[in-house]
Amino acid sequence: MIYNVLTLYPEMIEAYKEVGIIGRGVKSDRLQINAINIRDYSKDKHKRVDDEIYGGGAGMLMKAEPVYDCVKDIKKDRDVPVIYFSPRGRTFNSEIAKEYANLDEVILLCGHYEGIDQRAVDLCVDEEISIGDYILTGGHIASMVFMDTVSRYVDGVLGNSESYQNESFEDGLLEANQYTRPEEFMGMKVPEVLMSGHHKKIEEYYKEEALKETKIRREDLL
Amino acid sequence: MIYNVLTLYPEMIEAYKEVGIIGRGVKSDRLQINAINIRDYSKDKHKRVDDEIYGGGAGMLMKAEPVYDCVKDIKKDRDVPVIYFSPRGRTFNSEIAKEYANLDEVILLCGHYEGIDQRAVDLCVDEEISIGDYILTGGHIASMVFMDTVSRYVDGVLGNSESYQNESFEDGLLEANQYTRPEEFMGMKVPEVLMSGHHKKIEEYYKEEALKETKIRREDLL
Repeated sequence: MIYNVLTLYPEMIEAYKEVGIIGRGVKSDRLQINAINIRDYSKDKHKRVDDEIYGGGAGMLMKAEPVYDCVKDIKKDRDVPVIYFSPRGRTFNSEIAKEYANLDEVILLCGHYEGIDQRAVDLCVDEEISIGDYILTGGHIASMVFMDTVSRYVDGVLGNSESYQNESFEDGLLEANQYTRPEEFMGMKVPEVLMSGHHKKIEEYYKEEALKETKIRREDLL
Repeated sequence: MIYNVLTLYPEMIEAYKEVGIIGRGVKSDRLQINAINIRDYSKDKHKRVDDEIYGGGAGMLMKAEPVYDCVKDIKKDRDVPVIYFSPRGRTFNSEIAKEYANLDEVILLCGHYEGIDQRAVDLCVDEEISIGDYILTGGHIASMVFMDTVSRYVDGVLGNSESYQNESFEDGLLEANQYTRPEEFMGMKVPEVLMSGHHKKIEEYYKEEALKETKIRREDLL
């Protein structure tokens, strides 16, 4: 999977691609993360990429031209979908992540300041995605959420001992409580059934607990 | 605002605090971000912090003790709320971010692997927060989303020319399309009303467009 991240903060993406499961995926060539600085496409002598908003709104907006030129240069003649992170987009979830994990390459366009001139969005963007109902300082943070979530579904990124099968949302439920050694910690014991070795009972326990937690915490999922 | 981020990847948080609006907030002392490595609290000679899951689930779980010891050490005798990022938590949004922006200090506990032994969660955590219905490779990504969103509401972090007033969700609506110079780009013109200088008409236009965009994209918000 190739991610081309178009942002004003490529140094953040460079740091991201070194770390943890993502870092391991990059080293093993399952993932490729290219951090591209939109500022390099500014024709302004001061390399400015923003300007005031028409109609007098507070803050600055990213100009259409550098964004358009950057997307065009990275896309070349290939048919690579361009995702723009915006609070106005489709709300991201595990199902959408799985769809994207089937692709070979995407362009992730990160907005900064108050966002991007709508004409660049209209001309360049295939899908707008929102990672949640809140506002970030920039789309670079959303791009990491996207890559983090999608990459878990890319073949070979999670090791054999890891799994996405038992995670929350996979069967429409939240996960049950989980425990590891020691059997007792601060006077609190691991539920006996989990140490029983009785696979059928353990499975039943996990199912019941998952249902119970979902009912208490997120009834909307049921 | 002081954020204490407890994670296995403090280097990611160190990179995060250098960049953009957050970096500026740190330099001006409006924000303080302390990255703490949970691994430093392992008593294992190999500094391991994970172990197998009781009941035979795939993957590894973070052990209760290093997490508990780390939280206790950072918290000392102060009453600092501990937030744990988990898909089972309350779904994060702008309103929750504003509540947290009123606090002076928080502890952000990041889970890694399959999460944290439930006993450490029961003993240490005040609130579980989910940034969305998807699974990340680790809570360090969620902690950046949290800090990014909350910090925008901390006094002095956004400059005078910036604002959170006209953003999506602030009035329960998505934002209208926005434009900056030039007036024409690739044959596409800025809507005339925005260049009219007629404040009342511009305001009406923005309101109508915000309502229209919300209806098309997110009827659930209305």
